[in-house]
Amino acid sequence: MIYLDNSATTIPDESVVQSFKQVSEKYFANPSSIHELGADVERLQTKAREQAATLLQIDPSEIIFTSGGTEGNNLAIKGVALKYQGRGNHIITTEIEHASVYETCKSLEELGFTVTYLPVNSDGVVDVQMVRSAITNKTILISIMHVNNETGSIQPIEEIGEIAKKHPKLFFHVDAVQALGKVPLQLHHSGIDLCTFSGHKIHGLKGTGMLYIKKGTVLYPLFHGGNQEQGLRSGTENVAGNVSFVRALRLMMERKQKGYGHLQKIHQNLFNHLGKIDGVYINSSEHGAPHIMNVSVPGLKPEVVIHALFEKGIVISTQSACSSKQSDKSRVLDASGRSSVVSSSGLRISLSYDTSEKEIEIFIRTFTETIKHLKDILE
Amino acid sequence: MIYLDNSATTIPDESVVQSFKQVSEKYFANPSSIHELGADVERLQTKAREQAATLLQIDPSEIIFTSGGTEGNNLAIKGVALKYQGRGNHIITTEIEHASVYETCKSLEELGFTVTYLPVNSDGVVDVQMVRSAITNKTILISIMHVNNETGSIQPIEEIGEIAKKHPKLFFHVDAVQALGKVPLQLHHSGIDLCTFSGHKIHGLKGTGMLYIKKGTVLYPLFHGGNQEQGLRSGTENVAGNVSFVRALRLMMERKQKGYGHLQKIHQNLFNHLGKIDGVYINSSEHGAPHIMNVSVPGLKPEVVIHALFEKGIVISTQSACSSKQSDKSRVLDASGRSSVVSSSGLRISLSYDTSEKEIEIFIRTFTETIKHLKDILE
Ligand SMILES: Cc1ncc(COP(=O)(O)O)c(C=O)c1O
Ligand SMILES: Cc1ncc(COP(=O)(O)O)c(C=O)c1O
Repeated sequence: MIYLDNSATTIPDESVVQSFKQVSEKYFANPSSIHELGADVERLQTKAREQAATLLQIDPSEIIFTSGGTEGNNLAIKGVALKYQGRGNHIITTEIEHASVYETCKSLEELGFTVTYLPVNSDGVVDVQMVRSAITNKTILISIMHVNNETGSIQPIEEIGEIAKKHPKLFFHVDAVQALGKVPLQLHHSGIDLCTFSGHKIHGLKGTGMLYIKKGTVLYPLFHGGNQEQGLRSGTENVAGNVSFVRALRLMMERKQKGYGHLQKIHQNLFNHLGKIDGVYINSSEHGAPHIMNVSVPGLKPEVVIHALFEKGIVISTQSACSSKQSDKSRVLDASGRSSVVSSSGLRISLSYDTSEKEIEIFIRTFTETIKHLKDILE
Repeated sequence: MIYLDNSATTIPDESVVQSFKQVSEKYFANPSSIHELGADVERLQTKAREQAATLLQIDPSEIIFTSGGTEGNNLAIKGVALKYQGRGNHIITTEIEHASVYETCKSLEELGFTVTYLPVNSDGVVDVQMVRSAITNKTILISIMHVNNETGSIQPIEEIGEIAKKHPKLFFHVDAVQALGKVPLQLHHSGIDLCTFSGHKIHGLKGTGMLYIKKGTVLYPLFHGGNQEQGLRSGTENVAGNVSFVRALRLMMERKQKGYGHLQKIHQNLFNHLGKIDGVYINSSEHGAPHIMNVSVPGLKPEVVIHALFEKGIVISTQSACSSKQSDKSRVLDASGRSSVVSSSGLRISLSYDTSEKEIEIFIRTFTETIKHLKDILE
């Protein structure tokens, strides 16, 4: 099997699964228990948190473990909105956010908030000047993703961070779920107050994740209770999950060091070849993230192409996994100015550091043949 | 080691850990992906959901998988409060709820809700008549736990359910985290609209849990996003965790069938013997749940007793794990009318179906000696 749906989820690393199993078995106690078994578990988690902090060059106290990217995004956005509604009710985001940001913002509109959804250009990138202009004295939050999950477009997070720094009364949240380990992002001194990560996108486990919360940032928690995670995320800690997340993070950083050039190379390869196939339209930009490639084949239903490729042992997908069952048309491609026929025929090929040149060669050949064959019989 | 801190967390069943591992490895795809790998994972989860529904005699559509008891309680309470604030702003609960209910209610007061915290009698039980009287035309939610996590007191959930049925405009939520598999609870036709369960209290994994949501009940979700779990809990599903939760649930039901009499017997044993020790005060009622026994030893700090027992291979704890680091005085014992000296010296011995008669014998002997010894040197 050639698995090219790594933006939907990655194959968990064997040692990550193993670490989850071992911690579950050997460190089963509740870290809040005051006996020594509890203290041992607490220490283990503290060590993992410190490791993650070192890897991300932040303070351990700035790490909140979560159940995934969706929780992180919701905690960041609703946490700011509900806490600071007295200060203002305006939120700025973009039209191409992941559903866990987009729908969260929509839901806050129901609660009385006003949301500006900024457009993007044809490369799927937001205009920094527009972000600046959208800020009012009622703005409490800017939430903009780093790497888009459908097209791989990269947003100018550093520049937006500089703008955010000049407005100390608003918070800047970044959804870095697709960026982690692929596109570098410095958190410290960046103007970023909140940043979301997810375990299962970096060869970790589903049900694990992390939210960076800059020191001093107070939120209305989604989970109240026993005051775990500094009171920002109560609930008995999933210590095995948290430890396994940190291991996945460490392995991802190592993978990146070794594999970044390789990833860029196979990405470029995809560009060069797919662009030449008759009737195939490339939606991703060459300046986008190296692991996501989005193409449309107007006239062919994505599910038909996906199924045909699956029969030949190749796994690709369409849109984001989260919205793939709901609508034929991609909100992201639509916002990037694609025509209806292009927006509803998007296919996503998403790579990992484990994807080999050979696999990409096979994919290109099989894809080319499949498209030709399907067009022949269907058109 | 004799582990008697099962209300803080249980030792995960080996086969539950194994099932998590296997699903993580073999069914790693995103269940929302439209290719066949995704469909296989989706099918697996559907099967698990159906199994859980059969075990609990409810409909599969009434099951929402969560990351644990704290999430379940927060989702139920905030979900109703934020959704139905137009209908009313009054919530009824008790003074002895777990922090994940109690603090959630406190936090809603900050958002403009009014909460009635009902008192309990000296057995730690709420008065049904008081529940009835507390209802106003502004009441949107009653949230009352089934089994208290510190004393094991059982609340009259069935009778409260009958009251709730007569007020179709309010919702009835039950925190059954400590009750599941120990004290029977029928959900169907019970008047209960929402019921919280947690995996790690039933030999499952931390980071897993379930919320029963009666058909037709609409909530404001804590997690907006890709519309997983019927839109009530978005986010890529922790399928391995969910499947492992259902396995833990099934095993727990089997354990209960075989072990209920045994559990009652060793619980009675504890009552008979601990009550006779000089200076030991029993806080639990004989009518309480069979797995929790709370005693106070006024004059001895709980942590000293816990540490001394730990040295002898016995693990017990104090209060609930969640609040054990925060205050010396137990809110639950306080509410049950205990004096300050009793409330601040509570010890919790919590059993599982795996606890043997022999272990309880050793515990009783060791505990008796330890108390005597500590009193001798400290008094
Ligand atoms: C950009 C982006 N943000 C957030 C999420 C949600 O993360 P999770 O699947 O961990 O809930 C995803 C993936 O689904 C994503 O691609
Ligand atoms: C009665 C009760 N409710 C809720 C919880 C919270 O569940 P969890 O630990 O899964 O967050 C617990 C345990 O901590 C509990 O004992």
